[in-house]
Amino acid sequence: MKVLITGGAGFVGTQLVRALLKRKEILGRPPTELVLADLIKPAADFASIACVRPLVGPLIESCDALAKEQFDVVFHLAGAVSGDCEADFDLGLRSNLDSCRALLDALRAAGNCPRLVFASSVAVFGSDPGIPLPAVIRDSTLPLPQSSYGIQKFICEQLVADYTRKGFIDGRSGRLMTVAIRSSRSNGAASGFLSAIVREPLNAKDTVCPVPLEMAVALASPSNTISALIALAEAPREALGGRTAVNFPALTVQVGEILNALEAVGGRDARARVRFKPDPAIMRIVGSWPSVFESTRAHFLGLRPDTDMNSIIRQFMNEPGAVHVGA
Amino acid sequence: MKVLITGGAGFVGTQLVRALLKRKEILGRPPTELVLADLIKPAADFASIACVRPLVGPLIESCDALAKEQFDVVFHLAGAVSGDCEADFDLGLRSNLDSCRALLDALRAAGNCPRLVFASSVAVFGSDPGIPLPAVIRDSTLPLPQSSYGIQKFICEQLVADYTRKGFIDGRSGRLMTVAIRSSRSNGAASGFLSAIVREPLNAKDTVCPVPLEMAVALASPSNTISALIALAEAPREALGGRTAVNFPALTVQVGEILNALEAVGGRDARARVRFKPDPAIMRIVGSWPSVFESTRAHFLGLRPDTDMNSIIRQFMNEPGAVHVGA
Repeated sequence: MKVLITGGAGFVGTQLVRALLKRKEILGRPPTELVLADLIKPAADFASIACVRPLVGPLIESCDALAKEQFDVVFHLAGAVSGDCEADFDLGLRSNLDSCRALLDALRAAGNCPRLVFASSVAVFGSDPGIPLPAVIRDSTLPLPQSSYGIQKFICEQLVADYTRKGFIDGRSGRLMTVAIRSSRSNGAASGFLSAIVREPLNAKDTVCPVPLEMAVALASPSNTISALIALAEAPREALGGRTAVNFPALTVQVGEILNALEAVGGRDARARVRFKPDPAIMRIVGSWPSVFESTRAHFLGLRPDTDMNSIIRQFMNEPGAVHVGA
Repeated sequence: MKVLITGGAGFVGTQLVRALLKRKEILGRPPTELVLADLIKPAADFASIACVRPLVGPLIESCDALAKEQFDVVFHLAGAVSGDCEADFDLGLRSNLDSCRALLDALRAAGNCPRLVFASSVAVFGSDPGIPLPAVIRDSTLPLPQSSYGIQKFICEQLVADYTRKGFIDGRSGRLMTVAIRSSRSNGAASGFLSAIVREPLNAKDTVCPVPLEMAVALASPSNTISALIALAEAPREALGGRTAVNFPALTVQVGEILNALEAVGGRDARARVRFKPDPAIMRIVGSWPSVFESTRAHFLGLRPDTDMNSIIRQFMNEPGAVHVGA
């Protein structure tokens, strides 16, 4: 199987590549070629793996070349992150909307109707004054994105659905929850602190939490997220319940519970390294996202949320190189 | 007030211009300049009206020029219609999505945050296997467009909402119901027959109805639609209940009821001119649209549906030149 992973050198992309290399198959056949399209080079340890081919550069500029290949499976993970899209409107439109459109047109031009998984986001949800956010998000909940990032993800979901309906691709969109704990320092994602408040203390570094203890968030561990992406790629179309994006499962936790788990796993010293300093911009973006999901379609696909915060933190600590000092 | 109307030479656009000229004000001030951007020239009787300025050509090619002007109010009505978008995927993307994006960027470049009304459509609604269409469409109902036209309209709603949130425009989207009775022959709109089955018989011409008598549709008369567009333009932002598109009011009628009204107003001979010949493509598109609405936000803006089908047909017959033979 020839697989394209956009954003293939990013945090989720790298873990997805590792998972595919480990399971040695996708859709019942071995991944014979993994093309990793990204702004940066793939992880160093991929350099010696023959089936991994880097494609470095802005995605939108790679699409003419991609149109000349035929991929069996495409994971479209690339994109600018929430905080950056809010700070730079044109960057978001180009990196998320225009690049997705160019990719879809390239796959359409290739002409082999590849299977495509689009990584959308919980950030599509929000509330308008006339239509408040319901307490529980269901498959039929109307997304009301309150950030440019959420708007762009939601638009791309629509494009994926229509290119699929027209038979140009076999696309399916999954809405990722906030992925934590990330082992690398977050870039411009507004939700980056949700990893930092665990990762930094476990590495004996001080960190800042920009939201109050009571804020609830919808999390998924990296391995839970990767499993969901692969399951979405492998699901037969009739199991999907339509072309609309699937809400991935979420573990609902308050920020205070994350810190309790940090203390349980890393000790009181670790927790003491977290200082509180409210950031209105981050509180507004992350606070507009819902935290409680009833993801019936995802459940039907066999997807389940992580069981608890402690296990998410332990998953992070077991990652090679994640923790550099004793915790 | 300097007003831009894209699609200003179309059926709805022309009626909107007439309404603005008749009421002599918009947002409490006289319309001093009406720029009608369209592929075709405006109605002949506008040629002698000093404040009307045609801008003939594809909208996307006019946007560089539009960016150099400052409009107070913009009605964005231009676009390819449902049947044409389904037949020609690239036409729909260019005429609906790319042109809207170019217009929004032109208004953003102009820098004066104009008020903008975007004409979206009932066609954003549909059903997926996992998420059936509810019996009644409310403001919080999730759109699941089942046509490229519906997808493109829904995407443009998202862009209008985000350009508004960022302060580039003061935009508001309204979802138009099927506008009937149209006095001109329909172009490629899948819903064109809903006007033709009344217009053609009243003009002593045979016509074909491509759907069964039982199919229910959501209609609004031209005058009802124009009133809604103007009300949306004039509404203060806090009255809108958020940035999400407002579902305009709808009169729910079955096709059989339209023909009963045709007979009541035009006689048995008129009704006898309607022949039935099922068209699967039209049945699929129009049948995927909902017919019953509970439009709370529109109601709050003072908008009401037409009272009955007979009055809609009489409104059409009173239009100058609509009926060329005695009915």
